Amino acid sequence: MNVQPVRPLALRGEASGGVPVDGGSPRISTTRLDNGLEVVVIPDRRVPVVTHMVWYKNGSADDPIGRSGIAHFLEHLMFKGTERHPAGEFSKVVSALGGQENAFTSYDYTAYFQRVAPQHLARMMEFEADRMGGLNFDDDVVGPERNVVLEERRMRVETDPPAQLSEAMAASLFVHHPYGIPIIGWMHEIEELDRSHALDYYRRFYAPDNAVLVVAGDVEPSEVVRLAETTYGRNAPHAAPGRRVRPREPDPRAARHVRVADPKVEQPTVQRLYLVPSTQTATGRDSHALEVLSELIGGGPTSALYRKLVLEGGTAVNAGAWYMGSAIDETRMSVYAVPAEGVSPEALEETLDAALAAIPAALDDEAIGRAKTRLIAETTYALDSQSSLARIYGSALAVGESIADVRRWPEDIRSVTRDDLVSVAERFLVPRRSVTGYLLNGPA
Amino acid sequence: MNVQPVRPLALRGEASGGVPVDGGSPRISTTRLDNGLEVVVIPDRRVPVVTHMVWYKNGSADDPIGRSGIAHFLEHLMFKGTERHPAGEFSKVVSALGGQENAFTSYDYTAYFQRVAPQHLARMMEFEADRMGGLNFDDDVVGPERNVVLEERRMRVETDPPAQLSEAMAASLFVHHPYGIPIIGWMHEIEELDRSHALDYYRRFYAPDNAVLVVAGDVEPSEVVRLAETTYGRNAPHAAPGRRVRPREPDPRAARHVRVADPKVEQPTVQRLYLVPSTQTATGRDSHALEVLSELIGGGPTSALYRKLVLEGGTAVNAGAWYMGSAIDETRMSVYAVPAEGVSPEALEETLDAALAAIPAALDDEAIGRAKTRLIAETTYALDSQSSLARIYGSALAVGESIADVRRWPEDIRSVTRDDLVSVAERFLVPRRSVTGYLLNGPA
Repeated sequence: MNVQPVRPLALRGEASGGVPVDGGSPRISTTRLDNGLEVVVIPDRRVPVVTHMVWYKNGSADDPIGRSGIAHFLEHLMFKGTERHPAGEFSKVVSALGGQENAFTSYDYTAYFQRVAPQHLARMMEFEADRMGGLNFDDDVVGPERNVVLEERRMRVETDPPAQLSEAMAASLFVHHPYGIPIIGWMHEIEELDRSHALDYYRRFYAPDNAVLVVAGDVEPSEVVRLAETTYGRNAPHAAPGRRVRPREPDPRAARHVRVADPKVEQPTVQRLYLVPSTQTATGRDSHALEVLSELIGGGPTSALYRKLVLEGGTAVNAGAWYMGSAIDETRMSVYAVPAEGVSPEALEETLDAALAAIPAALDDEAIGRAKTRLIAETTYALDSQSSLARIYGSALAVGESIADVRRWPEDIRSVTRDDLVSVAERFLVPRRSVTGYLLNGPA
Repeated sequence: MNVQPVRPLALRGEASGGVPVDGGSPRISTTRLDNGLEVVVIPDRRVPVVTHMVWYKNGSADDPIGRSGIAHFLEHLMFKGTERHPAGEFSKVVSALGGQENAFTSYDYTAYFQRVAPQHLARMMEFEADRMGGLNFDDDVVGPERNVVLEERRMRVETDPPAQLSEAMAASLFVHHPYGIPIIGWMHEIEELDRSHALDYYRRFYAPDNAVLVVAGDVEPSEVVRLAETTYGRNAPHAAPGRRVRPREPDPRAARHVRVADPKVEQPTVQRLYLVPSTQTATGRDSHALEVLSELIGGGPTSALYRKLVLEGGTAVNAGAWYMGSAIDETRMSVYAVPAEGVSPEALEETLDAALAAIPAALDDEAIGRAKTRLIAETTYALDSQSSLARIYGSALAVGESIADVRRWPEDIRSVTRDDLVSVAERFLVPRRSVTGYLLNGPA
């Protein structure tokens, strides 16, 4: 029941896809039911557990104009019961079975998740298939739940300066594309969401032909497909939900700065976003090169930025970078630094820019090799977690990557050359594609 | 055939509405034809000339998502002939009659205009009514005209750093509302506009029930209405063009800076936009107060900014302010300064902010009175021009003001108090509602 945070570092592997290397890949089976549901089974017999996820191919960037937040609101309503099961029953059952559940809304998808012992998989599928088509939209559910979301926004954004800066930076980076609209929605638009909006949205997107079922665990693929047919198979397909209206960003011309000051700010930061290609919009090796580049620049304490700003320069107490490669449309790469005591954001930004400018010339094959190894290793470790495994495949499929893309990922990462890195740095990490944010302590 | 510039200073009166004071108002008659066309006749017998304008209540802010530029493209196509009159015939006739014509697209409306001797009014109405319903959309017209628009954008924006800064500033000010999209459209979206988009748009908006006819000049109202009935009266009404989908701006939280550098820049500038209420969104006297405030701050060489920055401080060679009050939704107020030789934009901005901060305390009733008088006088002078007269009423009606609003404008301006001015300055001219732009000479 979360708004998925922007590119958590802990999920690096997921954002790019990635599988165990050297023949360790699981044998994945995929099937499409008659009603259009894609069924993906990932065998994982290490633990007697099964992960059951449904990915809907609609996220906040598909919210209709003026109804921002509806994807996330629907995610909330999915926990409020159906005609057959009252609110809370599904969650109680998961809990009673010793399982876990969650859900999250991102820009391009919304997903629902349970982890239980394999013998309970059928029951999860029944519940999940039931709420795919039979959701309760009574006014006594919708109104109070909207208040819950409003309160969530108040707590997480309205009273949180770092979140305000993140929103303002995204809005400045994406001036035209809906990635500039917060996943949770704008306050004044959440306030207007009502039963009919929710119902229209549910009818458009919540359908087997707009979803991917991912089951990872100690299961037989044929048995999973059989269960899917007797549960989800009963859900009628809808007409296709229509083209995802995603206006493209204009070519950016102006370097932008965004500043949020608040007396509550304890730790100032300097952040930078660049508009860059995603796995889906990139040509050639650009996306994989950006992934390696962000690892080189800011992937942990051995990275170039950390060394220059924290270890050598002493101007920052932390610094890093990340790239949100997994996206349908043009996406963001971030570079950030936390100033050391007494260092102004302007001075830190200058040091940051000098460090970034020095990177292309300083790239050496050994550092590149280490970054690739680190990146691939991290993803491999992430796959130790069954839920990460399911998430990597589910998110990749939901944004339009194929299973083959995910499997080929380590190889693609290895194929990135020094020239590729210099080229993406020179083309994309330029002022006119950037938004710089300052979070400051001071009067609001 | 223009994209209307953002708030030209010369048209101050128009942006707010305004009429001659002290009983000098013309007797305006309004009628609605059966097909919904609103007919407004403004007698003006000073010269033997008539101004004929049709205002469509759709502008660039009504462009469908992903089809930015279509309102302006349609304006071009309106000159490309109809089933009855080939391309260029209308313009040739206007010219042969010694008349003038023009058209312009703005955020909230599109208007077409001719000025001729009164005996030719009927002929103008025939032509204009004809292209309201019978426009030619052959592929051999649409494709080449799109290339004309693309070239227009190349000349006016792609190769013009000040225009690039304006676009980037608007996009940063309006993160959600379509006022952030340029009237001419984004390059990559103009490129995609085709015949079917143009035809859909034309069918939706070009109809008598979405238009206001304004005729000013030496004419009898009853005769104008009779002529309107025999010309426009033959145009069938459409279904209403649908709600104008205008998502509201979220409450801004972050001060923004935008920077465009280009070796072609000869004169750097510092500009500031604030998100402020318009005549249509304001409560109480806020909009009229903003109008008086912008006159006080930056209306010419006696204004506060000009005195402080140019005459006293010597940090700028020019400085001013304007307020685009006439808008359906939340709008912009601007403050700008051109640095003196050797003054950095940062230093100028600091001086500008200090000057702005000092204004509320320094407001005195005499200066306020002078600003009001100046504002009212300028608008009165503007009314000497028949076409300004027609534009003031046409634009006001097109954004939802009434004739009474326009007539009451001088009185409303006079009613603004010192407290009103302090209040709007404190509430709206604050960093978090602002975007600051630097136009700089330097590498792009």
